Amino acid sequence: MIAPAYDPDNIFAKILRGEMPCHKVYEDDHVLAFMDIMPRTDGHTLVIPKVAGRNLYDLPPEAFGGLFRAVQTVARAIKTAFTADGMTLLQSSEAAAGQVVFHLHVHLMPRRDGVKLRPHSGDMADKDILVAHAARIRAAL
Amino acid sequence: MIAPAYDPDNIFAKILRGEMPCHKVYEDDHVLAFMDIMPRTDGHTLVIPKVAGRNLYDLPPEAFGGLFRAVQTVARAIKTAFTADGMTLLQSSEAAAGQVVFHLHVHLMPRRDGVKLRPHSGDMADKDILVAHAARIRAAL
Repeated sequence: MIAPAYDPDNIFAKILRGEMPCHKVYEDDHVLAFMDIMPRTDGHTLVIPKVAGRNLYDLPPEAFGGLFRAVQTVARAIKTAFTADGMTLLQSSEAAAGQVVFHLHVHLMPRRDGVKLRPHSGDMADKDILVAHAARIRAAL
Repeated sequence: MIAPAYDPDNIFAKILRGEMPCHKVYEDDHVLAFMDIMPRTDGHTLVIPKVAGRNLYDLPPEAFGGLFRAVQTVARAIKTAFTADGMTLLQSSEAAAGQVVFHLHVHLMPRRDGVKLRPHSGDMADKDILVAHAARIRAAL
């Protein structure tokens, strides 16, 4: 077995079904993008496929094109919105790699020259800041 | 301008043209995959598109599907070859994010429970080890 089974009650599946809120940045037929509520850098955004997939191992192969075309679209908007010097794209599969929510998600973290990412502290960001950052990225799309 | 221009004399372009060697793991119409010569974990592999793209910002959108379908194929083989507990997928755009070679590349780093990635030291791995690791991954494809 290449990956354990997909659990449809994970938090991101609930967000996709509208059962949980998010600070939405972008949506199309293939993906939903929203702010990470524990950002490792200002503008830290998640892009998730609408199709079920636990992680890199089991996402249906035909889903990758739509997912990463949207990742590019969102990355360009984040770059503009935050005048970023660089962008870190991270996708973690399984707990050993740091995966916490078991619906595939792509992290986009805008970077500044000489500034390290904050550690993954578990601290929630201020809601008003996330609302403002999401609006800033949407305006740059 | 969303990204600076692509330089066709970067090292990975030379590898694609056969002007520089690599420890090849996988190749298809869309990608080439080979061992990172400064691995942050045993089995650290790079997957690069054959089409020119400096990084996430400027890769032709139609290239993402083939690239990431191959990333999944290679990730599954690395998981099997190294009995990995997890997998870190990292793609860095521009120097502020740690990009050193300016042809888009996706890092696949197999993970073990409780073991951190080695820092990016700049130390080259022993060639015989890279040869053996490439063979191990190819055998799992």
